[in-house]
Amino acid sequence: MQAYSALVLAGGRGERFWPWSRPERPKQLLPLDRGRSLLEATLSRLEGLVAPERTWILTSRHLVPAVRALAPEGAHVVGEPVGRNTAPAVALGALLARAAGASHAMAVLPADHWIEPAERFRETARRALALADGEPLLVTIGVPPDRPETGLGYIERGAPLGPGAYRVASFREKPDRATAEAFLAAGRYYWNSGMFFWRPQVLWEAVQAHRPAVASPLRRFESKLPAARLEAELDAAFGEVEAISIDFAVMEKATNIAVVEAEFAWDDMGSWNAWARRQPSDAQGNVVVGQALVVDSRRCIVVTESSSLAVLGAEDLIVVQRDGATLVCPRSRSEEVRRVAERAGGERFE
Amino acid sequence: MQAYSALVLAGGRGERFWPWSRPERPKQLLPLDRGRSLLEATLSRLEGLVAPERTWILTSRHLVPAVRALAPEGAHVVGEPVGRNTAPAVALGALLARAAGASHAMAVLPADHWIEPAERFRETARRALALADGEPLLVTIGVPPDRPETGLGYIERGAPLGPGAYRVASFREKPDRATAEAFLAAGRYYWNSGMFFWRPQVLWEAVQAHRPAVASPLRRFESKLPAARLEAELDAAFGEVEAISIDFAVMEKATNIAVVEAEFAWDDMGSWNAWARRQPSDAQGNVVVGQALVVDSRRCIVVTESSSLAVLGAEDLIVVQRDGATLVCPRSRSEEVRRVAERAGGERFE
Repeated sequence: MQAYSALVLAGGRGERFWPWSRPERPKQLLPLDRGRSLLEATLSRLEGLVAPERTWILTSRHLVPAVRALAPEGAHVVGEPVGRNTAPAVALGALLARAAGASHAMAVLPADHWIEPAERFRETARRALALADGEPLLVTIGVPPDRPETGLGYIERGAPLGPGAYRVASFREKPDRATAEAFLAAGRYYWNSGMFFWRPQVLWEAVQAHRPAVASPLRRFESKLPAARLEAELDAAFGEVEAISIDFAVMEKATNIAVVEAEFAWDDMGSWNAWARRQPSDAQGNVVVGQALVVDSRRCIVVTESSSLAVLGAEDLIVVQRDGATLVCPRSRSEEVRRVAERAGGERFE
Repeated sequence: MQAYSALVLAGGRGERFWPWSRPERPKQLLPLDRGRSLLEATLSRLEGLVAPERTWILTSRHLVPAVRALAPEGAHVVGEPVGRNTAPAVALGALLARAAGASHAMAVLPADHWIEPAERFRETARRALALADGEPLLVTIGVPPDRPETGLGYIERGAPLGPGAYRVASFREKPDRATAEAFLAAGRYYWNSGMFFWRPQVLWEAVQAHRPAVASPLRRFESKLPAARLEAELDAAFGEVEAISIDFAVMEKATNIAVVEAEFAWDDMGSWNAWARRQPSDAQGNVVVGQALVVDSRRCIVVTESSSLAVLGAEDLIVVQRDGATLVCPRSRSEEVRRVAERAGGERFE
């Protein structure tokens, strides 16, 4: 094992999984991956790749105890006082690792993705880490698309850099349907997985060069801080740092960008619909978790803790119950669940 | 007020209103009529028409206390030990009334119908009572259809008997769609409302003539029984009496049948869909009772006690919650709710 490091981004809210997801129980902590949380699955994929002592996990401050309970002994769990999107998070992670002596490549992994099989992921990650370790590159993983997905950003590959690795020709935002179909047909576009590989120093230089409003408030983490001061410094830094994604802040501006082609199956697991794609279904295509009575229904997603839920004659419908809250919506509206989660977040509506 | 009598049939289970309806809280006791139960509404329509002392209410034995609480002072509440359909019920009611001295016409009214306005109902009922009082007829009320309903039986009218009253030419079972449309176009077919008017003696003679298996076990009620013996005699009689509807047992065989045309709006209120037709809806056609969050949805029926139910992007869907149980089904499947109620009747499925 090289002295690689890892940064796991476990700060999302995952509101599209309401009512399973709640502020205190976001998507990455739900047992969405064969009974295991996506965070646990992410951490387990790092086994044999990165030592726990060189693993940083960034999450929301109120989730630190829950995340620590799932993290391997020795891993560093850091709580953000407030979410500021991915650019401040990855820059902070790079600085914390660098201050702890990490100079080799770092894997940056969202904690809410579904990936299979783990061994193929490790093979791809090893290639990406080696590439980023050897050259001052910002390396992404691109997933070959198998459908004209409009809910993801795309990466266009450019000149080859080695086996399964390419320069990035362009980043493309979520396309419309026709564009997504053209991307799929063209064969040189990947889904942007949101996984990154770079030496902490290389990333930090890029942030400073391309986004001072992110870099400046984080300079306080350039040298190692006493543990007792960390929380106060995080409060100060996150109070002023710009909220922006690393894609907008750096990746779309830098020129030293590479993409490594994923050899594994991947899903951003962004909605009930995405989750159901990876679940076993009955003969009518229904994915049922819990004791629901599902009669004459097709392609429904039914998840309940209740023992008295009946779904009759429904098609392509999502019905989810937890803690006394219930969601009913068509699968086609799966991406919009956030709209009701914001208004129905707790046990009662406002 | 003539010395008319009334028999209110309050024994149904109303499983199509699951999960609002439960064995201990059947349809006729639910507040489905502007916050009042259908049984209360039925009894109130008898005011000024039949005295409470000449009103008999038949219900399930376990519902006697709940029904007595809603019945006017002086009315007779009788509990059936087991449901045996309408023929034994109306024959028993006729015998109990006759034994108590009722010789004039009796109104037989299901307790689970929606009717409006009450005064128009009373006018029609008075005509039907007068007709049945004057001649040895079995009189029904026929409702002029306003849609090609396939969920109801029809009555074909024959020769006129007086203003708005006719001989019955034939009874027709629930038709298919094309037949229902033909009935609607023909103009001489009525919905069979299940309301009847007859002298108790006339009905009892018809039951004896056409259905001995119903009449024989009920002969014990021909003379007045001591109150203390009633329950035991009901057990004995209902243990052996044939379970059959009065339509099959008598109405479709007898020749002394008449129909009086309803001058009121009527619904058998047989399902959530039927109920919603009589409720106010929002601009998108949704009928919402309770604190549900209904977003981008059209023509849905949403009834809940929960304060955390979200319905997003749904159309023509029924979502009902009560006592921890939830029903989700399309409005088009409203008539089939019984199928899940039977299996999901209590708090838990079997």
